[in-house]
Amino acid sequence: MGKQVWKSGNMLYPLPAVMVSCGRQEEKPNIITVAWTGTVCSSPAMVSISVRPERYSWAILEETGEFVINLTTKDLVRAADWCGVRSGRDTDKFSEMHLTAAAASAVACPLIAESPVNIECRVTQRIPLGSHDLFLARVLAVDVDEALLDEKGKLDLSKAGLVVYSHGEYYGLGKLLGSFGCSVRKRTGKKRKAGSRPGNR
Amino acid sequence: MGKQVWKSGNMLYPLPAVMVSCGRQEEKPNIITVAWTGTVCSSPAMVSISVRPERYSWAILEETGEFVINLTTKDLVRAADWCGVRSGRDTDKFSEMHLTAAAASAVACPLIAESPVNIECRVTQRIPLGSHDLFLARVLAVDVDEALLDEKGKLDLSKAGLVVYSHGEYYGLGKLLGSFGCSVRKRTGKKRKAGSRPGNR
Repeated sequence: MGKQVWKSGNMLYPLPAVMVSCGRQEEKPNIITVAWTGTVCSSPAMVSISVRPERYSWAILEETGEFVINLTTKDLVRAADWCGVRSGRDTDKFSEMHLTAAAASAVACPLIAESPVNIECRVTQRIPLGSHDLFLARVLAVDVDEALLDEKGKLDLSKAGLVVYSHGEYYGLGKLLGSFGCSVRKRTGKKRKAGSRPGNR
Repeated sequence: MGKQVWKSGNMLYPLPAVMVSCGRQEEKPNIITVAWTGTVCSSPAMVSISVRPERYSWAILEETGEFVINLTTKDLVRAADWCGVRSGRDTDKFSEMHLTAAAASAVACPLIAESPVNIECRVTQRIPLGSHDLFLARVLAVDVDEALLDEKGKLDLSKAGLVVYSHGEYYGLGKLLGSFGCSVRKRTGKKRKAGSRPGNR
């Protein structure tokens, strides 16, 4: 069989589907779920999120210039989906989803305590692209659940039960297929421990 | 247990790890594997890739303004890893990895025939960020393996065996946990067919 050529479209999958927390001082904080997100630079550590200008969170991001990326786990799939479908104009998403808004260390807006990894970010640039604005941001701090650290303090992210979003579906992670650099390492018969080489590409 | 606060770093996972093909006319094409990639806009469909200026592909991307994102499957993990570790300065990656450089429809550089989904892109902007330059690009065409289409021509991307990259490890996809909008749909007891709602966020 061959290939069909489609005109255009979004077909880059699987992607993370993260819960972005944000908020103005003295107002209820909000959560917007975003799959249009990624790492854009290793040094300095930078990420991007794309948000439609008509979304409730857009003005908060634009005004405060701060947000937290909260990684989504199996236990948080329903909340992540809900926060992607509903609007913060009508609801208090933390309260409705029984999530805890905890103080972040480097930004004024809260993080989601129930997420095992929280990435605290400050916007450096907003680029209007069409349906979405691209927010580029510096990572100021990362909060990691101590339950994911081994006895030596090394992160084992595979314990977190992270999920991905692929063409309208949420999936857990499956089989470990290899680690960064596996194609050029000699086979020793030993299985590498997860997380021992983060792969700063 | 609580959380540890780390100063900064790249902790947004899982991510796609795509093979980006590129090339100048009359020269051997190249492949660079990129995990710092994402969708940045729905309409027009746009993606980003981040590439270090010292990489062999950087000058090709800068000069030609074109590339193809080739999604990575289980069968392509070794090739993807190898194309991320080796440099095209020293090797012909298509030849070494026994991959087929096939003609794309909207760009002059080739796509990887063995990848089931190829996203043909034209660069609109390059933004230097530090270690990496961020290339923003329009999606001009998407090539989809007909084996992924059902009898009605609908895409079932779950058949592709796509992989993700998470903190130095490659994983297949695991259990289906839900679909976009599942948190607000009434339960019918029926399982939704994968891919029936792409979730254009």
